Amino acid sequence: MWPSVEVPRAEPRPEAGPQGVGSRRSSNISKLPAPAPAVTRELPSFSNSRLNSAIPVPSSPNEVGRRLGTMTRAGMERWRDRLALVTGASGGIGAAVARALVQQGLKVVGCARTVGNIEVNVLALSICTREAYQSMKERNVDDGHIININSMCGHRVPPQSVIHFYSATKYAVTALTEGLRQELLEAQTHIRATCISPGLVETQFAFKLYDKDPREAAATYEHIKCLRPEDVAEAVIYVLSTPPHVQVGDIQMRPTEQVT
Amino acid sequence: MWPSVEVPRAEPRPEAGPQGVGSRRSSNISKLPAPAPAVTRELPSFSNSRLNSAIPVPSSPNEVGRRLGTMTRAGMERWRDRLALVTGASGGIGAAVARALVQQGLKVVGCARTVGNIEVNVLALSICTREAYQSMKERNVDDGHIININSMCGHRVPPQSVIHFYSATKYAVTALTEGLRQELLEAQTHIRATCISPGLVETQFAFKLYDKDPREAAATYEHIKCLRPEDVAEAVIYVLSTPPHVQVGDIQMRPTEQVT
Amino acid sequence: MWPSVEVPRAEPRPEAGPQGVGSRRSSNISKLPAPAPAVTRELPSFSNSRLNSAIPVPSSPNEVGRRLGTMTRAGMERWRDRLALVTGASGGIGAAVARALVQQGLKVVGCARTVGNIEVNVLALSICTREAYQSMKERNVDDGHIININSMCGHRVPPQSVIHFYSATKYAVTALTEGLRQELLEAQTHIRATCISPGLVETQFAFKLYDKDPREAAATYEHIKCLRPEDVAEAVIYVLSTPPHVQVGDIQMRPTEQVT
Amino acid sequence: MWPSVEVPRAEPRPEAGPQGVGSRRSSNISKLPAPAPAVTRELPSFSNSRLNSAIPVPSSPNEVGRRLGTMTRAGMERWRDRLALVTGASGGIGAAVARALVQQGLKVVGCARTVGNIEVNVLALSICTREAYQSMKERNVDDGHIININSMCGHRVPPQSVIHFYSATKYAVTALTEGLRQELLEAQTHIRATCISPGLVETQFAFKLYDKDPREAAATYEHIKCLRPEDVAEAVIYVLSTPPHVQVGDIQMRPTEQVT
Repeated sequence: MWPSVEVPRAEPRPEAGPQGVGSRRSSNISKLPAPAPAVTRELPSFSNSRLNSAIPVPSSPNEVGRRLGTMTRAGMERWRDRLALVTGASGGIGAAVARALVQQGLKVVGCARTVGNIEVNVLALSICTREAYQSMKERNVDDGHIININSMCGHRVPPQSVIHFYSATKYAVTALTEGLRQELLEAQTHIRATCISPGLVETQFAFKLYDKDPREAAATYEHIKCLRPEDVAEAVIYVLSTPPHVQVGDIQMRPTEQVT
Repeated sequence: MWPSVEVPRAEPRPEAGPQGVGSRRSSNISKLPAPAPAVTRELPSFSNSRLNSAIPVPSSPNEVGRRLGTMTRAGMERWRDRLALVTGASGGIGAAVARALVQQGLKVVGCARTVGNIEVNVLALSICTREAYQSMKERNVDDGHIININSMCGHRVPPQSVIHFYSATKYAVTALTEGLRQELLEAQTHIRATCISPGLVETQFAFKLYDKDPREAAATYEHIKCLRPEDVAEAVIYVLSTPPHVQVGDIQMRPTEQVT
Repeated sequence: MWPSVEVPRAEPRPEAGPQGVGSRRSSNISKLPAPAPAVTRELPSFSNSRLNSAIPVPSSPNEVGRRLGTMTRAGMERWRDRLALVTGASGGIGAAVARALVQQGLKVVGCARTVGNIEVNVLALSICTREAYQSMKERNVDDGHIININSMCGHRVPPQSVIHFYSATKYAVTALTEGLRQELLEAQTHIRATCISPGLVETQFAFKLYDKDPREAAATYEHIKCLRPEDVAEAVIYVLSTPPHVQVGDIQMRPTEQVT
Repeated sequence: MWPSVEVPRAEPRPEAGPQGVGSRRSSNISKLPAPAPAVTRELPSFSNSRLNSAIPVPSSPNEVGRRLGTMTRAGMERWRDRLALVTGASGGIGAAVARALVQQGLKVVGCARTVGNIEVNVLALSICTREAYQSMKERNVDDGHIININSMCGHRVPPQSVIHFYSATKYAVTALTEGLRQELLEAQTHIRATCISPGLVETQFAFKLYDKDPREAAATYEHIKCLRPEDVAEAVIYVLSTPPHVQVGDIQMRPTEQVT
């Protein structure tokens, strides 16, 4: 299933990967006590041996949806009870996105891999996107939304050698998202494609990268006030809340204090 | 004052130009019955002979702010009663932005020129930005926000010759906004710089461009469901509503059905 | 006529502006003793009150062409005795380009303005390009070539505030050149459009910018081994020497030691 | 070893991949009768199980170098008898580059894989580049040159779905080349990094892609006058011929008749 993305040092954060939103509620699902099994029933084509764990969503989405109903953002009503797949949902941005979607009343299925190879990610994202699109097509979902978590590194190469290869994969995400947008349009769907390109986000990732030097890891996030995963999740919610005729292609966002 | 931007045919819309938000309420202003005179008192350096009209804001912002208070978006509380200058406010995107800001409780001063030269706009935007920044500096405003209405034409040159020069000016806006971001950071402020880059927006502008051929003008907006000025205004509100440590650099948005 | 371009501090160099190559030799011109008068006869539409001086080409192009014939680069034979207009030819890149073209056997008409406003340049370049294209069209020149001297600043905004506005104008040149390419193709010509985007070039320009501080001016060119105007001229020659079916759109070139 | 790059339909051509030029002539090599064995002796770290064939260079480079000496391009003298590694040298651009380098007096080692996976290419290019750099470092080569054959698809995503993934890999090459440039500079070398970004090049590749439909394959190259592999090779020679202080970062080149 969607792998979590291993993230390099200088701009370290777990990537949420492609996030498909849109499969309409099926009667099958609504009877299920927990979202995880829904994955295998609803989306058997998505499960494979690479799947390590289906992340339990913080609490039952339907219940949360009802409880938090009053918090639904303007424009988010149409997503209530619809299914969102969130990759990399075990932490960082992915987890924040999953929480935010649940809060807005969506049913969220999260997944993650514990080990990721950066270089595999571009291919994985490409495959996942294709699968998500196939799934929407089979269900006649014309208003789905595929959101790729990109990076500012997908738009310019920062002067830290440690993230140059990471930048290359993110440049690829920039191209893939634009290509996807074109293909969805060519197929005469109204499924939208978006990427969100954050700068430095405070996640636990630097601690994996600098696993022998927790000080350096901590320093990554200390010299400026970083983006929080929730800030990226907010961008996802904004993008989803726009009317169906509006397609946000990219949101580029950085900490106000970030230099490059 | 900030000129309205004359807009070319293929992607026609009045530009709102730079929109400075942030001057804190001064006691002078709060006594003024209407925002327009505030311009000359608050911001004398902004007024000049090119100013044609200060656009009356739909209704008294304070009053509207109070009346619409319950509609204030999350994150917009900190902007209540603060001053926003909106250029090109006589119609299209500028007018929609002005209305949206008033709805969120800001005091809005709008201005417009009836005649604009595209080629002057880059310089004008640059001057206005500088003035807005100076004004913020004089008032010790560290959390202001300058939002330039750019265009998707500022990122790629579409294959219509009629908008090639327009594209050039928008490429310039892309560079100016990034330059501004760097300068604001270098000056150790937390003033944020953003551009919003819409594709085809439905405004009355095509009717000015194709003034002899209203059919062609209308056709511009008919072949696809265009962005509305309100969609761009929503993006402005989202950008403003992010926490102070989040700087959205660019939002690229197109009609879902737009090809290029 | 084509103005020389005033250049900012951090990446200072006189711009050569658009350089049209291609008008076929007319019998009128070949009789003229010097190229300067040819301007007014051949290209009356180009001359206007802004013209300060037609730069005398180093020596009679025809004579030089013959004398230097053996040095003609492979691929440059087809340009022999054809007319090149070089703007900003009084110094720096423009002068180097003019010399290189003469060396390759072209007839060169150079022009320059002593005073330039950066912000006028985009418009000027646009006008000149249009005029050059009109001139080619009138002469049924299908294989002309318009080369704009752009800058690396036309592709990314370097972190020096002094060149931010300059960057904006160069971003515009990037868009104009791509737009021109599209228009020439749409008009079913084989006229080619190219921009050359150098980084730091050693010219006398820093001395104009830092006219009160010659030391700082000199320092601009001392910390690294800069490009020389001749290096840019070489790029022009390479671009011209490619076969007619090859259109180099952009050459991005920097000093090997340049950081940003 | 460097794999040949499988190329998609719309802009089909075998990629030459990274081409390292610069290892100084060693006495070992000069005694070898043919360049192919030199690969395993000179550069054992480059050979691995993925290597299918070392391409025999058209004729002995030394001999060719001497025979073609008079054709050496200005600026190419300093490369005489130096070693060039050309990947994807079995056909298309790679073969043309190898031929051109031999003609300029370099010793060329070519290699190729018969089967390539596009998605592996980014990683392969990254690894090869690293190896090439290591090899130069070990030999104290400060003036080497790494040239990546990119594509116009590395700069904008054309509207053909069949090359969207290919575009993604080429966007990655754009980032990798810029990252490499930064790293080489940071390591205080004068090794140069360049990418060359051609549009549609006429190779035999469309016939592999449309292996069941040779008509469609042929049609790819028939509607316009395409670039030839030799045109790209010429760009490589130009880039190499610039003085050591000049670093061409990118040459973007298209057929004059290419629309997108």
